[in-house]
Amino acid sequence: MRITDIILKKRNGGELSAAEIRFLISGLLSGEAADYQVSAWLMAVWFRGMTPAETAALTMAMADSGQKNDLSALPGHKIDKHSTGGVGDKTTLVAVPIAAACGVLCPKMSGRGLGHTGGTADKLEAIPGFRTSLTEAEFLNTVRKTGMSLMTQTGDIAPADKKLYALRDVTATVDSLPLIASSVMSKKLASGCDGVVLDVKVGSGAFMKTAEEAEALARQMIDIGRQAGKRVSALVTDMDRPLGSTVGNAIEVEEAMDALRGGGPADLRELSLALAAEMVRLADGGTAEECLDRAKRALGSGAAFETFGRMVECQGGDRRALERPFPLSPCRLELRAPREGYLTRMETGEIGTAAVMLGAGRSRKDDPIDLGAGIRLLAKTGDFVEKGQPLAVFSAAREDLLKPAAERYLAALSFGEDAPKPQPLILERLGGD
Amino acid sequence: MRITDIILKKRNGGELSAAEIRFLISGLLSGEAADYQVSAWLMAVWFRGMTPAETAALTMAMADSGQKNDLSALPGHKIDKHSTGGVGDKTTLVAVPIAAACGVLCPKMSGRGLGHTGGTADKLEAIPGFRTSLTEAEFLNTVRKTGMSLMTQTGDIAPADKKLYALRDVTATVDSLPLIASSVMSKKLASGCDGVVLDVKVGSGAFMKTAEEAEALARQMIDIGRQAGKRVSALVTDMDRPLGSTVGNAIEVEEAMDALRGGGPADLRELSLALAAEMVRLADGGTAEECLDRAKRALGSGAAFETFGRMVECQGGDRRALERPFPLSPCRLELRAPREGYLTRMETGEIGTAAVMLGAGRSRKDDPIDLGAGIRLLAKTGDFVEKGQPLAVFSAAREDLLKPAAERYLAALSFGEDAPKPQPLILERLGGD
Repeated sequence: MRITDIILKKRNGGELSAAEIRFLISGLLSGEAADYQVSAWLMAVWFRGMTPAETAALTMAMADSGQKNDLSALPGHKIDKHSTGGVGDKTTLVAVPIAAACGVLCPKMSGRGLGHTGGTADKLEAIPGFRTSLTEAEFLNTVRKTGMSLMTQTGDIAPADKKLYALRDVTATVDSLPLIASSVMSKKLASGCDGVVLDVKVGSGAFMKTAEEAEALARQMIDIGRQAGKRVSALVTDMDRPLGSTVGNAIEVEEAMDALRGGGPADLRELSLALAAEMVRLADGGTAEECLDRAKRALGSGAAFETFGRMVECQGGDRRALERPFPLSPCRLELRAPREGYLTRMETGEIGTAAVMLGAGRSRKDDPIDLGAGIRLLAKTGDFVEKGQPLAVFSAAREDLLKPAAERYLAALSFGEDAPKPQPLILERLGGD
Repeated sequence: MRITDIILKKRNGGELSAAEIRFLISGLLSGEAADYQVSAWLMAVWFRGMTPAETAALTMAMADSGQKNDLSALPGHKIDKHSTGGVGDKTTLVAVPIAAACGVLCPKMSGRGLGHTGGTADKLEAIPGFRTSLTEAEFLNTVRKTGMSLMTQTGDIAPADKKLYALRDVTATVDSLPLIASSVMSKKLASGCDGVVLDVKVGSGAFMKTAEEAEALARQMIDIGRQAGKRVSALVTDMDRPLGSTVGNAIEVEEAMDALRGGGPADLRELSLALAAEMVRLADGGTAEECLDRAKRALGSGAAFETFGRMVECQGGDRRALERPFPLSPCRLELRAPREGYLTRMETGEIGTAAVMLGAGRSRKDDPIDLGAGIRLLAKTGDFVEKGQPLAVFSAAREDLLKPAAERYLAALSFGEDAPKPQPLILERLGGD
């Protein structure tokens, strides 16, 4: 087998065998396939796409490229949850404890934020003392004791995916559905769970800009799961506006805690309950309604909040901090509406970028972040605002960060005379059967 | 300017500016554009093609990437000649001295053979004492004294082309017309000549398999020349059978000397005269008929052979050796026809490979070659053969090389009851206006 022949076959529209894909992926790690060969192959994939069998083979080759979690010591159904990335998306902090409170085992690895999207691992570090870096034994123990654990992905999970993604990032081959699907699913397969609920975001703050693309991505990921013997379901959800009313780290955890206490914004509550219900359904079966009822009860009874608090305690965090407002960075700016009218559109990616400018996120992988920086949204798409009415409050560590971020934020908003057409939060539910 | 944006633009079907292409090519040499980025770009080019303006910009960027010959010290029109590569193609050794004898200045750099195609520089080394590696002064002096010089390409001519070709070779992006055209023409632009005659081969022994492809390649190269202010003409010629009756190095030089003395096979003579006539036409103008007449006179009078002999002498070679048969490697095998019938087809690339197996060529760049190894063809496509009639004679340095090569050769032949349709040697003449 020669790498050049594999590139040629894909370039000419042929279907690669699982053995050929495995040879390429193991070559990527061993150096037998040079980076410049793999990137030519990636571009050929961008043009030709991949068949479902190829996509599944690529996913499994990447999942097998490093350590795979062994969760067999945990009795019961282990269900994972993954979001394709959005702005203000703190649903993991709400949905996972709800599912865990329903008896689903939730050993979950979370990523860090990059670009305009946030990451759960960053947010959790706003809880004093909380450790996201755990040994395997600590991870399993926390799940055993509380039903859930949230930790950062260890370096050796799907290293081929890491390397492939780094190449895609600098060769204009990121936006390929089979490459996105296999990247997500390789980590999920390696995580060792029995099933996964995917939250595929669509809209101006998401990678997928149209519902059709998002649905196609969801179907590819579901199909990979099926071929790998995992139960996968997906919700295609709106990211044409930020989720909830906060963007940042500490500020988002505070909002998530409000939601776990039964409050918080309606959209966050709705989506978290829907995701948790799907997790319950994958674990235990039952109708969608039954599962949603279980999720609602776990939230309403306080069991979910209790679960989260116990998990925080197990991972070294200060549980009492969850009851209090989270400290934000000291400098503040209130942005006011420049005119009267309906807020008709929010360029949500730009809002994420405004948060990054405040210090809440990273432009590059190794940038430090300010956990106390963030945005509190006081108006969202569909709201009518008076001229001069507060639209958002910005927090940052330094005064000079505020104005550029606020300007970026304002530029992301559109106003009009007529109320925009309401959009559903959950566009579609796929898979899970 | 960012490399990733350049890849993205090409990938999405946009047209790159000359500045963007220059940035990419200088980045390839400086390391600012990583190999894995350039190879992704190459694959995008394979899929999207290049506009004439892009192709010309790429060619000029590569031509400018290294040393450019300064031939201004030579008074008169300097005309180059290039073949896209074939089997048994020794026309440079015949056409160039004819053109030089007509008064065209021919400072020509030649390549070495690779794969199934031979290289003039290798062939010339079969002449005892002949040096293909010259200083610039020696090169110019030889042209001044004799009208021509043949030397190997120096390392610093179009180094970006060298690097790009090496990447294409291992990333399945060789067979892209704009990349082939720009690669050839970058070296020709850097060579400093005023014009170039291209011999674009088509058929089973050529890179281009169809006349349409060959014509398209020829047109692209002519167009590049036009944009760079060079006169370029092209002959599209048959390579569905080897040219002449010999394949190898010493054996081909001997045949070329026969041709220069007015003998040799008719196809070699016809093509050499046509190429020389084009060189004369690019240098001096005139009708095709007038130029062909001049070429025929230069050949018939012995002036071309005299020119070649003087050039050999100038470059340290033993001129007397040109008068005698060239020594071949000692081991011989005669291949006989396994049946009676017409020779209906020769897989000419395979015949080139048979010669490589004898030691006459290289599989890899640094392989040594046996100048005395080769094949004498005793029957070619269209000939009727009796069973047992000799088809070819193989020469090699070792007995064990003979049989595998002869078997490969035989497998490349097809026999049939009916004479195949005769094919013209010169399919088309393009450009040069």
